[in-house]
Amino acid sequence: MNLLLKEIRHNPLLWLLAFVPVVFAAAKLRPEAHTLLFVLSVLAIVPLATLLSHATESVAAKTGDAAGGLLNATLGNLTELVIALTALRAGEYMLVKASIAGAIVTNTLFMLGASFLLGGLKHHVQEYNRVTARVQASLLFLATVALLVPSAIATADSVGKAAIVQDLSLGLSLLLIVAYALGMLFSLKTHKEFFASAEHADDDEAPWPMVLALATLAGVTVLVALVSEIFVESVQKAAETFGMSPAFVGFIVVALVGGAAEMASAFAGARKDRLDLSVGIALGSAAQIALFVAPVLVLLSYVIGPTPMGLQLWPGAVVMMLIATLTASLVTSNGRSAWFVGVLLLMVYLVFAMTLYLLPPS
Amino acid sequence: MNLLLKEIRHNPLLWLLAFVPVVFAAAKLRPEAHTLLFVLSVLAIVPLATLLSHATESVAAKTGDAAGGLLNATLGNLTELVIALTALRAGEYMLVKASIAGAIVTNTLFMLGASFLLGGLKHHVQEYNRVTARVQASLLFLATVALLVPSAIATADSVGKAAIVQDLSLGLSLLLIVAYALGMLFSLKTHKEFFASAEHADDDEAPWPMVLALATLAGVTVLVALVSEIFVESVQKAAETFGMSPAFVGFIVVALVGGAAEMASAFAGARKDRLDLSVGIALGSAAQIALFVAPVLVLLSYVIGPTPMGLQLWPGAVVMMLIATLTASLVTSNGRSAWFVGVLLLMVYLVFAMTLYLLPPS
Amino acid sequence: MNLLLKEIRHNPLLWLLAFVPVVFAAAKLRPEAHTLLFVLSVLAIVPLATLLSHATESVAAKTGDAAGGLLNATLGNLTELVIALTALRAGEYMLVKASIAGAIVTNTLFMLGASFLLGGLKHHVQEYNRVTARVQASLLFLATVALLVPSAIATADSVGKAAIVQDLSLGLSLLLIVAYALGMLFSLKTHKEFFASAEHADDDEAPWPMVLALATLAGVTVLVALVSEIFVESVQKAAETFGMSPAFVGFIVVALVGGAAEMASAFAGARKDRLDLSVGIALGSAAQIALFVAPVLVLLSYVIGPTPMGLQLWPGAVVMMLIATLTASLVTSNGRSAWFVGVLLLMVYLVFAMTLYLLPPS
Repeated sequence: MNLLLKEIRHNPLLWLLAFVPVVFAAAKLRPEAHTLLFVLSVLAIVPLATLLSHATESVAAKTGDAAGGLLNATLGNLTELVIALTALRAGEYMLVKASIAGAIVTNTLFMLGASFLLGGLKHHVQEYNRVTARVQASLLFLATVALLVPSAIATADSVGKAAIVQDLSLGLSLLLIVAYALGMLFSLKTHKEFFASAEHADDDEAPWPMVLALATLAGVTVLVALVSEIFVESVQKAAETFGMSPAFVGFIVVALVGGAAEMASAFAGARKDRLDLSVGIALGSAAQIALFVAPVLVLLSYVIGPTPMGLQLWPGAVVMMLIATLTASLVTSNGRSAWFVGVLLLMVYLVFAMTLYLLPPS
Repeated sequence: MNLLLKEIRHNPLLWLLAFVPVVFAAAKLRPEAHTLLFVLSVLAIVPLATLLSHATESVAAKTGDAAGGLLNATLGNLTELVIALTALRAGEYMLVKASIAGAIVTNTLFMLGASFLLGGLKHHVQEYNRVTARVQASLLFLATVALLVPSAIATADSVGKAAIVQDLSLGLSLLLIVAYALGMLFSLKTHKEFFASAEHADDDEAPWPMVLALATLAGVTVLVALVSEIFVESVQKAAETFGMSPAFVGFIVVALVGGAAEMASAFAGARKDRLDLSVGIALGSAAQIALFVAPVLVLLSYVIGPTPMGLQLWPGAVVMMLIATLTASLVTSNGRSAWFVGVLLLMVYLVFAMTLYLLPPS
Repeated sequence: MNLLLKEIRHNPLLWLLAFVPVVFAAAKLRPEAHTLLFVLSVLAIVPLATLLSHATESVAAKTGDAAGGLLNATLGNLTELVIALTALRAGEYMLVKASIAGAIVTNTLFMLGASFLLGGLKHHVQEYNRVTARVQASLLFLATVALLVPSAIATADSVGKAAIVQDLSLGLSLLLIVAYALGMLFSLKTHKEFFASAEHADDDEAPWPMVLALATLAGVTVLVALVSEIFVESVQKAAETFGMSPAFVGFIVVALVGGAAEMASAFAGARKDRLDLSVGIALGSAAQIALFVAPVLVLLSYVIGPTPMGLQLWPGAVVMMLIATLTASLVTSNGRSAWFVGVLLLMVYLVFAMTLYLLPPS
């Protein structure tokens, strides 16, 4: 507990934890103040995500290489998963899908681009292990292809398509999970010598003891789930107030909120010239969302959603994912980076953000 | 003749030759048993394709480097050509096109992917000559672009498009054949030192004498043509019985049947750590179908088809070809492979196969 | 003045200057002879563009590295800019856009491809600095993405889209100019050691004195503007006479005319085994048109056009740009070239040219 307090004092992001009780109080007292609740829940989720990420890494560090890698690979995006599950239970499938696609695009373009830029402003040229980048980008490419197909079918006007899209989504979801599992087998087991030791944890800090880590993991997950409920309820109405389209909210705002903790680690790594870490977090997190979180949500929608959810997205989202994946592939193909590479990635992200912001709220 | 019998005894695939007389007998006795005829004709084509491929290589080996390369490059996909010609004469243009697109996708994803996987399960990391892969992938990319254009125009709804698409198909076909010829000039003549000696023939086996090879070439081509007729007639009805969509049959089943002989060689090469051979067969065969077989079929449709056939495909097929070509380009760009690369290619193939299987039989 | 005359005697292209007075005379005497005026104006623009390009380089050579690079980077496509401005003032937005997209595609495929082919016919294998190629190709990719988005939105049928497309075009134009400026900062300033000294000027020739260069720059720009007016007025009617579709004229003819001077330099560089020069001119010019000329035209359309012009293109043009950019990226990724690489690029260009030629004049 002492360690936890020390961590909180050490890391300014965690001071935002004060907003956790505030948001619960506000939700009780003024349930109709959507904009306020939206802002407060965002401020509360960011530090919780940071704690969650630290706890996961601590457990991973204790359980050894393979098991730890597996844990990080499945729980690394717990915040995104919990937010998406809350939206899934509420039947907000559009928000679920926008947040998935948005998280993939945001991690591939914004997190990677800002890491390259921040690192490049300090270091003239940076090198990193491109094998990791290649494997993650390949997995992302596979996931994009798998998401493209049901979307293309769903767009084509024809009767009786809904059932086919749903069957296909189920099959593809299983395929993606298998591909993700094999990818872990490859990078953690059979060919691990090719992969840099891109640990998520910052090794300057000692990991927490097991009990603290597990308790934090459990407790904070519950808190994230509770705050997410307020977030999901308020986000749509708040967006209207701010004049943002729902696509912009799901794609950009939710993705940035959910990924705040990982971004902090990725950026810190880049500044310390440990770009392996940054690339691993950015692309690894995107691949995890595409090949693990998204399919798991499809499977869970059969259990907890009002109706089964398919994998199909609206055409624009698929195009953005495709471009993001292709850009990441091209950019990481030679394992070197300078500030301008970051600028290019951020520019592509800005093109998308600008488009989504201006789109009509249809 | 003795050599031929020895070969048959040596190679279990060739035992299937017994099905050749059976399929002819069945076609005479029970011409309405489509499903049976379909199965029998598949079982008969596979060993015939193997013989054809061996005979071509023997002739090529005898006629010296350049002429042999040329022969291999034009007759290497004789089975696919004969099947497609039979379908062309019957006016089954949809089947012709599906089998062309399917052969390209199957060779690029399935044959290459399975080679990487099978090789990778035995050898930790495999290297191959990436110049060959680059040139073949570039030719495939060009062919995909050439197929994309008339398809895009044919899709756009407008009057008087049919004539334009036909003119364009004729022009593009000639262009593709010229590109293919120049590609051979480049790899067999002007810059041959950059290309690995990726002979199709397995050099453990002695080539057949010229007379035997030529006689086999002639005789087996006639047999393939006769069996293909039964195959083309029965395939559509049989597909209905099995609950397969026509797209699935043309794209997947025909492509696997037509390419069985080459797959056997490619997989054997990969197991023996001769990945140059496997990559050469898989991508070379795909390039040949795209830049030689397909345009030749368009040209021949003016002579033997009921009406001229264009190059346009349905949009989904073009997208699959584009993704397959792009995937092959990305994957072969560094000349190294491990089992997971094969898994990725096979997964993309599975996504396509699953989609085609579930598609409505519209 | 003596130098100018010597230059003219030295360079056969400049003998075409004789057509400059001829075209003005013809426009006065026979203003309705569109085909004649079209041919004459083309013959007059080519030598003017050559002079303009030489003058720009001379000024650049005198003003030192960074300022010179900046000048070359902004005035390098002055001919294209002046032609497009004339069309813009006349409200011929379709022609403006076709010539922009066409210049990008022509530079990336035809100029680069012909350089590789011409160089490869003389030299077995040629090497060049691939860092330059990578940065230019990345900038082109960003521009293509930025052009894709408003085009996709403009295609989707929906009310109230026009205003959004216009706002978006304005935002994206500013973004592209910023990206272009940062790209120059990167290649001319912070990381210039990675870029080959790909000067546009042929260093065999001495640069002109400053006064002559500036006077030529000013005088010839006025002449180009005057001839462009005749060109833009006559081009559409002349196209009908020749049986060419307007898309073909804008995309192919205008692009070849506007880029004639640069092509002469690029081809000469390739023959002298200075492929850095050729690649720098071809891709640099394409990037400049996409990230500087096009956005500047959008901004200027608010001032001098009848109505604001957006960035959206028709879908086919975006697909061609995307394929051209992708092809250039793939082809230049390893910094080596042989004649066949040139053939491939030219073939893709031929596919596009053939399609545009056959398209109905809708």
